[in-house]
Amino acid sequence: MKIGFIGLGNMGNPMARNLAKNGHAVKGYDVVPALLDKAASQGIARATSVADCVAGSEVVITMLPSSPHVRSVYGNESGVLAHAKPGMLLVDSSTIDPLTAREVAFDALAKGVAMVDAPVSGGTGGAEAGTLTFMVGGEAKDFEAARTILAAMGKNIVHCGGSGNGQVAKICNNLMLAIEMIATSEGMTLAAKLGMDPKVFAGIVNTSSGRCWSSDTYNPYPGVLENAPASRGYAGGFGADLMLKDLTLVTEAAKQAKVPVLMGAIAQQVYQKHSADGHGGKDFSSVILQYLKT
Amino acid sequence: MKIGFIGLGNMGNPMARNLAKNGHAVKGYDVVPALLDKAASQGIARATSVADCVAGSEVVITMLPSSPHVRSVYGNESGVLAHAKPGMLLVDSSTIDPLTAREVAFDALAKGVAMVDAPVSGGTGGAEAGTLTFMVGGEAKDFEAARTILAAMGKNIVHCGGSGNGQVAKICNNLMLAIEMIATSEGMTLAAKLGMDPKVFAGIVNTSSGRCWSSDTYNPYPGVLENAPASRGYAGGFGADLMLKDLTLVTEAAKQAKVPVLMGAIAQQVYQKHSADGHGGKDFSSVILQYLKT
Amino acid sequence: MKIGFIGLGNMGNPMARNLAKNGHAVKGYDVVPALLDKAASQGIARATSVADCVAGSEVVITMLPSSPHVRSVYGNESGVLAHAKPGMLLVDSSTIDPLTAREVAFDALAKGVAMVDAPVSGGTGGAEAGTLTFMVGGEAKDFEAARTILAAMGKNIVHCGGSGNGQVAKICNNLMLAIEMIATSEGMTLAAKLGMDPKVFAGIVNTSSGRCWSSDTYNPYPGVLENAPASRGYAGGFGADLMLKDLTLVTEAAKQAKVPVLMGAIAQQVYQKHSADGHGGKDFSSVILQYLKT
Amino acid sequence: MKIGFIGLGNMGNPMARNLAKNGHAVKGYDVVPALLDKAASQGIARATSVADCVAGSEVVITMLPSSPHVRSVYGNESGVLAHAKPGMLLVDSSTIDPLTAREVAFDALAKGVAMVDAPVSGGTGGAEAGTLTFMVGGEAKDFEAARTILAAMGKNIVHCGGSGNGQVAKICNNLMLAIEMIATSEGMTLAAKLGMDPKVFAGIVNTSSGRCWSSDTYNPYPGVLENAPASRGYAGGFGADLMLKDLTLVTEAAKQAKVPVLMGAIAQQVYQKHSADGHGGKDFSSVILQYLKT
Repeated sequence: MKIGFIGLGNMGNPMARNLAKNGHAVKGYDVVPALLDKAASQGIARATSVADCVAGSEVVITMLPSSPHVRSVYGNESGVLAHAKPGMLLVDSSTIDPLTAREVAFDALAKGVAMVDAPVSGGTGGAEAGTLTFMVGGEAKDFEAARTILAAMGKNIVHCGGSGNGQVAKICNNLMLAIEMIATSEGMTLAAKLGMDPKVFAGIVNTSSGRCWSSDTYNPYPGVLENAPASRGYAGGFGADLMLKDLTLVTEAAKQAKVPVLMGAIAQQVYQKHSADGHGGKDFSSVILQYLKT
Repeated sequence: MKIGFIGLGNMGNPMARNLAKNGHAVKGYDVVPALLDKAASQGIARATSVADCVAGSEVVITMLPSSPHVRSVYGNESGVLAHAKPGMLLVDSSTIDPLTAREVAFDALAKGVAMVDAPVSGGTGGAEAGTLTFMVGGEAKDFEAARTILAAMGKNIVHCGGSGNGQVAKICNNLMLAIEMIATSEGMTLAAKLGMDPKVFAGIVNTSSGRCWSSDTYNPYPGVLENAPASRGYAGGFGADLMLKDLTLVTEAAKQAKVPVLMGAIAQQVYQKHSADGHGGKDFSSVILQYLKT
Repeated sequence: MKIGFIGLGNMGNPMARNLAKNGHAVKGYDVVPALLDKAASQGIARATSVADCVAGSEVVITMLPSSPHVRSVYGNESGVLAHAKPGMLLVDSSTIDPLTAREVAFDALAKGVAMVDAPVSGGTGGAEAGTLTFMVGGEAKDFEAARTILAAMGKNIVHCGGSGNGQVAKICNNLMLAIEMIATSEGMTLAAKLGMDPKVFAGIVNTSSGRCWSSDTYNPYPGVLENAPASRGYAGGFGADLMLKDLTLVTEAAKQAKVPVLMGAIAQQVYQKHSADGHGGKDFSSVILQYLKT
Repeated sequence: MKIGFIGLGNMGNPMARNLAKNGHAVKGYDVVPALLDKAASQGIARATSVADCVAGSEVVITMLPSSPHVRSVYGNESGVLAHAKPGMLLVDSSTIDPLTAREVAFDALAKGVAMVDAPVSGGTGGAEAGTLTFMVGGEAKDFEAARTILAAMGKNIVHCGGSGNGQVAKICNNLMLAIEMIATSEGMTLAAKLGMDPKVFAGIVNTSSGRCWSSDTYNPYPGVLENAPASRGYAGGFGADLMLKDLTLVTEAAKQAKVPVLMGAIAQQVYQKHSADGHGGKDFSSVILQYLKT
């Protein structure tokens, strides 16, 4: 397929390369010249503008930092929607708020262009390895069309329902994840301070009703799981500042939906303090340092 | 074995009967005459006092509502410790704070009597079916001795380390469980209000990083899991007021240990409000009503 | 002075009338025709557009619902800044986030036009009576120029420092106010449940270290202060949904400033639940119903 | 009057001396010999036991660290109640939970002995200067009897209603105080980070609806109030660990009364973290360091 790819940063660059590796003709664009140069040196064709990237493509994929970027890249007079043609498929893999995702998809639909939202989990490691998870919101037929292309970049591609639901799934999952990581941090720290061996406690929790992904797969207590970031100084993984960004997105979506999310608001504050304390670049499981350091 | 069993309430009664069913000679005692009568009618020998219940027993098991009861039943001048003899094994299956558990075990040790703390999870259903989980704190040899007896009442018997660690494992697991149940309640409610099908969302979370026991085994959203209390009006299961009791225990233990448990304190408040709103008798997953009803 | 007034809603209408009453020549505009008709019937000259409202005015005052409205009314190609001329004074009395306030003022300055932010407290009652408090951010000379005009609408006009500081003062004051109102609700409810007469307790607190405006002037417990909204079913006053709006503004400003505001985030959630429970139209002291109703 | 005084620590010692200075015959007792020696060297007669201290006294005053101490000193077989005689007046100035206060007073009444609870505020400075505030719970006639004696130690003596209400007033006031101090810390820090001069912001708040004792009399931001602990490194004043103790008391009383105190639970956690971070010995307004240090 002829694919235009807009946004060639830490995530977009390896995603575009995996598409090319799988035989697609990929033309890339980024407003940052250095990112464009780098991709060009790695075999991605160089587009001169958004318009040029869209022109002649069958599929356009975007990977952008935030809602305002998505609004601008799609909605500007020289943006994606101004140049997209019926029959094209648009895929936005940015993590943004569901309302913006739905508005942009609606504008695309109004021009007869199909669009799905397809945020990812798996981080830069998953992007490089082509093992990302895609959570996809949109019509069933558009999801089917997107799936074959996304398969070049990920191994788990899930249909979440109509437009915007990919974003809903992503941010609501991460809401739960953040709270559970802090819950695990509190439970592990308290059990240890009350005299239990952290590994023994984790073993019991993980076969009991307190188990969660944060306790059995990504335990934040140093030394409990050999391969978790906690056992290598919280390097790599999913950065605390990225979690903070998602918590900000989800608590703002909750305000718009008028749903109280008391635990989510606390989690947002805990990560905000963690970031202000200088730990934003560490893996998000480092939030246990808010407890262990005391 | 000759076993004395003190505390024949909703949990103690079926536990004592399972011991008898497995061939042990069980003598029971309770301060409430009606409970004593009931047990006697079910084949448990009737002791006339704590002293009588302890006399001649090889093992004494207690199942009591709270720390003050444990202190009183063990420590009174006519209590268990006053009549226990070296060679006996004492097993306290009450859920109490770890410090009290350690103090009573220390007093037992001072008299040359072995003691383990062995709180349970699994509720009255598990007590009836003999499928409780026992979290046991004490010396390895005492754990081994207890295991063969506990096997008549449960199927998962775990050694948590030294004295008091059974209690630590129990309350720290439940700390995590309560927070995760509220996290699941917030995530499920928000995803639904933002337009996702709750079953589809649960399916995605349960194969992703937000998964936890509360989402994949005991989901609080009505209709997501056919066999969960949420799908039968929150009847049965583990009562919200029992969870509130455990949260009170664990947040007080955290105060003594000087460990901040911010999420735990919030969870305690949310369950306190839930109870004050009249839902204390429902299954603890009904806490989602704090979100859904709005 | 010749004054253009944009935004003739519940607050703007009486403010414009008070200016006219004090001898100013007021020309008004609103996008809602009914509001424009109403003001015209009350002696405010009718402008046909923002441009018409700005043309020939020496001072332009805006009273708008939110940041996007302010950006649009000032920044559009047919907006205030497109028609403002050096020598004019612009006064924005909307309550918005400080960053937007500073950006718009900066754009005005770039065109040689003076601008101050001047959000108010005092509600519709204060707007009618001409007794509003204005918190003003901007250059000292612009503050002095604004003061004489604002004096027609308010009796307390405070200079808060440079551009945007009026907004900072307003939202940080309301952050404290919301938390203190909830603190008072918790203290009053608990004291009453523990057996004290609420009036006696309030009397003690109000001469002690727990006193605050919410306890001594606006007590939320029914019957404690005869003239407080609590003693008339929480009618009138400052609506809970308006407090929710300010809490949302201030917690978002805190995110941008990377300042943790744990109590503020909780207050935002408590008011969000209060609003979701259907109390958004009541005075904000009705938040005590979250406690008393249980 | 002949007064027995039990508990001669940091608070009790100066209180007893002020009684003696005012012409009362004071006999003192403490279980710590050094405290007894110190008081004796300062003119307080030395009692050899609780019994000796009670014998021959018309009034007995106790100043003890916690509920268990009060239960023990009053209730033991060699305690106050065992030796008190009808006609005596018992005054407990300890800060303890209201339920314990009521139980002990009830036991006294059962022996025909009058008792009031009379916790204080004002700290060691107020104890030395004789300017404490006493919050008194008990019968009106007993309050009147106590007032003349308490006047030797304090200048503000308030009747809070029946037995235990002195404790209710004390802990509910401090609940509000702690939350308001944190509210002030958040508001001051955020206003400063958003660019306002802290003194200017405090000036505005203190004439507006956000004002509270913590903002206008005891502002936690360094340099705002010359005489506040914040302007001398948080030395002296009311220690953070004492506030933590009161927050623990009040949140536990709220559990027993089944009143949710969400903000109070957060405040307890914030002070617990503050103490764990090593600031327990500083004035309680130092809690702003949880915000400023980031």
